[in-house]
Amino acid sequence: MAVIVDLEAARGKGPQPSLDALQALVADDIAKVNAVILTRMESPVALIPQLAGHIIAAGGKRLRPMMLLGAARMCGYRGPRHIGLAASVEFIHTATLLHDDVVDDSDLRRGKATANTLWGNQPSVLVGDFLFSRAFQLMVADGSLDVLAILSNASAVIAEGEVMQLTTANDTETSEAQYLDVIRCKTAVLFAAAARIGAVVANRPKVEEQALESYGLNLGIAFQLLDDVLDYTAVQATLGKSVGDDFREGKITLPIILAFRRGNDEEKTFWRRTLEDLDQTEGDLAHAMRLMNQHGVLADTMERARHYSALARDALDIFPASPEKTALLEVIGFNMSRGH
Amino acid sequence: MAVIVDLEAARGKGPQPSLDALQALVADDIAKVNAVILTRMESPVALIPQLAGHIIAAGGKRLRPMMLLGAARMCGYRGPRHIGLAASVEFIHTATLLHDDVVDDSDLRRGKATANTLWGNQPSVLVGDFLFSRAFQLMVADGSLDVLAILSNASAVIAEGEVMQLTTANDTETSEAQYLDVIRCKTAVLFAAAARIGAVVANRPKVEEQALESYGLNLGIAFQLLDDVLDYTAVQATLGKSVGDDFREGKITLPIILAFRRGNDEEKTFWRRTLEDLDQTEGDLAHAMRLMNQHGVLADTMERARHYSALARDALDIFPASPEKTALLEVIGFNMSRGH
Repeated sequence: MAVIVDLEAARGKGPQPSLDALQALVADDIAKVNAVILTRMESPVALIPQLAGHIIAAGGKRLRPMMLLGAARMCGYRGPRHIGLAASVEFIHTATLLHDDVVDDSDLRRGKATANTLWGNQPSVLVGDFLFSRAFQLMVADGSLDVLAILSNASAVIAEGEVMQLTTANDTETSEAQYLDVIRCKTAVLFAAAARIGAVVANRPKVEEQALESYGLNLGIAFQLLDDVLDYTAVQATLGKSVGDDFREGKITLPIILAFRRGNDEEKTFWRRTLEDLDQTEGDLAHAMRLMNQHGVLADTMERARHYSALARDALDIFPASPEKTALLEVIGFNMSRGH
Repeated sequence: MAVIVDLEAARGKGPQPSLDALQALVADDIAKVNAVILTRMESPVALIPQLAGHIIAAGGKRLRPMMLLGAARMCGYRGPRHIGLAASVEFIHTATLLHDDVVDDSDLRRGKATANTLWGNQPSVLVGDFLFSRAFQLMVADGSLDVLAILSNASAVIAEGEVMQLTTANDTETSEAQYLDVIRCKTAVLFAAAARIGAVVANRPKVEEQALESYGLNLGIAFQLLDDVLDYTAVQATLGKSVGDDFREGKITLPIILAFRRGNDEEKTFWRRTLEDLDQTEGDLAHAMRLMNQHGVLADTMERARHYSALARDALDIFPASPEKTALLEVIGFNMSRGH
């Protein structure tokens, strides 16, 4: 059980890194962001705040807003602009989640029934559109064309990543490069935008914008890779979904890509049957996990995540020491320790 | 057959109003708008231009872009900004069409198979998101926060209108006021935004912005009312869809609202069975049309449309005579004469 040993080793190194430091630093700001979110998801059309409230108010760590707020503080910003922009980023994130769940036909999100399960696909699509529009209204109220450019570009790239993922879905021949392209677009770009905006509101030089963008981008990639690993290892309570969900849906993630490439002909036939044809029987998930263990693919996916974590860490080198910098660096460690 | 006579009467008054004058005035501009649309729907993800091209390049009258271009010219604008903004408006329109067809589960659009029929709901949702993002990128490139405010507000209201429509769907008790609210939001607001932006790019005073907004809003309401009438009268070739589509889907449009309110108990039972329970048998559409004729509801819907047309016409009064003004006024007449 190479994977388990490896994760245990990572765990041994002192206290678990957590989001506590960042949460404490931005606690007041996050309360304001939540207030803006609640105000701005209002609509005379009652179904909109109902459905939006289900996904927004109910949960999530507010990781992207916290990164934006933390980055703004680290850059010395002391004004009010980061509040609305953090809410805007969360609205974009929530809109993509609503549309994702429709596209993936998902039943559970953060351990709760998805909006599309409760209200159907139709309002999920439309309330996603509404939140997306609200995000842009918040940016317009802020008035920075730089921020508008960053987030409209990010939104286009996210949509491209989602379509890309659709076209590689259930394709065991997907390359690691293609896969990284997908997660960079669909996940990491919004982390990058959130962190970068911290420098933009603080009017910091381009080099700091780029450093924060690189931090967010690489952390975002590592974040998605951890999600992929956790799908095969986490307990349901921690992750809010069942182990093996990705397998059952035939989702091609990095562990699968590595296992397929390293497998012999018989194994490739197994992966094609289960993931391309979605022809699965009892025992297939267990067999899949045996093969993944044999080829050490979860450990290697963790290794890739460690690589991107290192890039994220180094990107912040140009900033002087500060409580905010320490807190942002700890997010990297928190991500790597998730679910353990 | 009161309806037919009424429409015939409208037809008798001289030559049919058309889009020809407006099309001729903005022909060069529209060619440029189409070029921007083609360039900006590009993506390294091949499915995006494929699917977007199917709905964008294939058809539509480009009515909203033409209104923006015509309004800008009428306001004396001679720069290049209206081109990108007209493309932006068309992208927002196309994104809403893609999502609409998913929400309505439509098979045909402008007489062709819908994108969701050809490629499935998933890419239709995501390519809609992509085009929506592209719309905002075009606005950001233009750089006007006023335009960004107008179109982000319009987008939020459109989404609200669509959700509102969802909650009144198949509800025969929907009031005329509720229905007008829906079509104002989901259809007319984008017409209003398109026309208003013509004054914004030309830096005209607020009163002209408001006049063009009122023109667009009232024309947009009349436009949707005509669509509703045409669904029960037009030949398939003209409209690109079958007569009675709205009836078969149980869509509650103004003709239905009027027929239900004016009907006796037996008729109300008929409308509830066919439109709420969607329990329809052969002969039901014919019976529905007999009832609609009896109560004169198509003629009265036309009458309502004439009212909004008059408001649209009067809104342009503050502008001096010009070929552009004449052309914009003719759009109102063109709308009223559609399908005949």
